Amino acid sequence: MSETLEDRLRAVEDKLAIFHLIASHPPAADTGNDGYYRDAFAADAVIDLGTKTATGNEAIAAVVKTPEHQGAIAVGLCHFAGLPRVEIDGDTAVAISYLQVLTPDTDARPRDLSGHGASSGYRIHRLGANRWDLKRTRKGWKVVRRAYRMLDGSEGAPAMLRQAIGVN
Amino acid sequence: MSETLEDRLRAVEDKLAIFHLIASHPPAADTGNDGYYRDAFAADAVIDLGTKTATGNEAIAAVVKTPEHQGAIAVGLCHFAGLPRVEIDGDTAVAISYLQVLTPDTDARPRDLSGHGASSGYRIHRLGANRWDLKRTRKGWKVVRRAYRMLDGSEGAPAMLRQAIGVN
Amino acid sequence: MSETLEDRLRAVEDKLAIFHLIASHPPAADTGNDGYYRDAFAADAVIDLGTKTATGNEAIAAVVKTPEHQGAIAVGLCHFAGLPRVEIDGDTAVAISYLQVLTPDTDARPRDLSGHGASSGYRIHRLGANRWDLKRTRKGWKVVRRAYRMLDGSEGAPAMLRQAIGVN
Repeated sequence: MSETLEDRLRAVEDKLAIFHLIASHPPAADTGNDGYYRDAFAADAVIDLGTKTATGNEAIAAVVKTPEHQGAIAVGLCHFAGLPRVEIDGDTAVAISYLQVLTPDTDARPRDLSGHGASSGYRIHRLGANRWDLKRTRKGWKVVRRAYRMLDGSEGAPAMLRQAIGVN
Repeated sequence: MSETLEDRLRAVEDKLAIFHLIASHPPAADTGNDGYYRDAFAADAVIDLGTKTATGNEAIAAVVKTPEHQGAIAVGLCHFAGLPRVEIDGDTAVAISYLQVLTPDTDARPRDLSGHGASSGYRIHRLGANRWDLKRTRKGWKVVRRAYRMLDGSEGAPAMLRQAIGVN
Repeated sequence: MSETLEDRLRAVEDKLAIFHLIASHPPAADTGNDGYYRDAFAADAVIDLGTKTATGNEAIAAVVKTPEHQGAIAVGLCHFAGLPRVEIDGDTAVAISYLQVLTPDTDARPRDLSGHGASSGYRIHRLGANRWDLKRTRKGWKVVRRAYRMLDGSEGAPAMLRQAIGVN
């Protein structure tokens, strides 16, 4: 209401900073860049994938250096992020972002697409939504918690999304 | 040209407000949150999906409460939105956003991805582009019309996209 | 640090201008709008798709007018762009954007999704990341180079992404 131009500009910068943080996740995951996680996540941050969790930015960063994760990169790994929804409340924020995890479809037969060569295509291995909880720090926005739930008909994802948006 | 800082800042805020409105659509559709539609669409708004239409924010909101829509959520429903293109002209705006509608692929055999468990994957049921027509109101940007056309080789989507961008 | 409000606002405008340029690519590719390429790319711009290259905005624009590209539009062609990561450094910028190229899956049997009709679905023909190099000109941001590498397990995409982000 009586916000100054600087307040309003800062709100815009905050939103774009959080967009940037979310947009930087796929290139980090798909190249195994642990530095991203160490920097973007708070020291006591939690990742909750539903199936497994990790606590602390060091432990979170270590995942992409495991032989299992490197094995996925070796066969083709893609994290594909949609347009996020970011709500900022002072020094904290909640963001929702949809995320596909894809890999080459090695079962499929190669098919032609006019002007676009032949390809056996890609399959969507995981599909779901992230809830990111963030806080403002002296070193910029940091992730406090990232939860991911698959949109597979189980109750987890809709419940998480409803809670994130504040509807019952 | 002789725009003030405030004019320029408002243009940025407008664009991000419309991003927010578009980013809020998938979580609403995938949880059956009719409140989103009631709030985001104008009282006389129109949704035109090509195959069917609905008029008025109440009628539009009611769709996600139908047994048919709830049935899709129960088996796994995901609206996945890409990066939108938003053009603002004073108190009106036209946005293009691509949208996938996905659901679990219950026909496929489960497959492993190193470090990412087994999954039978997801299939893209619908794929197309939205044209959103919006207007500025005292209560923020509201959708006046949303049209969706599938990119399936029929003429609808390219024609809609060309018109939205203003090319022949 | 001692940045003025105008400097900060300009940085925000720059980022959104590059978002707009990237968001305008799919509608241009999927409708064969050569005007987009002529305008968005510098006169001496290079497109490097790994498999083939083109030099100059005129040559780049001409691709979408070829019978091969028009043939893809005729069967259904969709470029689907994710959230980009944009870093600006003065009058140059580097952006990463993920991109799916999709087309109807004519091999699959039609399947029903409650409330969403029947569809044989869509397949992802190409999946990869773009690196966009841009420069500021008197006529706005222009693309100097766009490289696209598929996330198919080959070394190209991870190497390109690591270099774009500045990690080893």
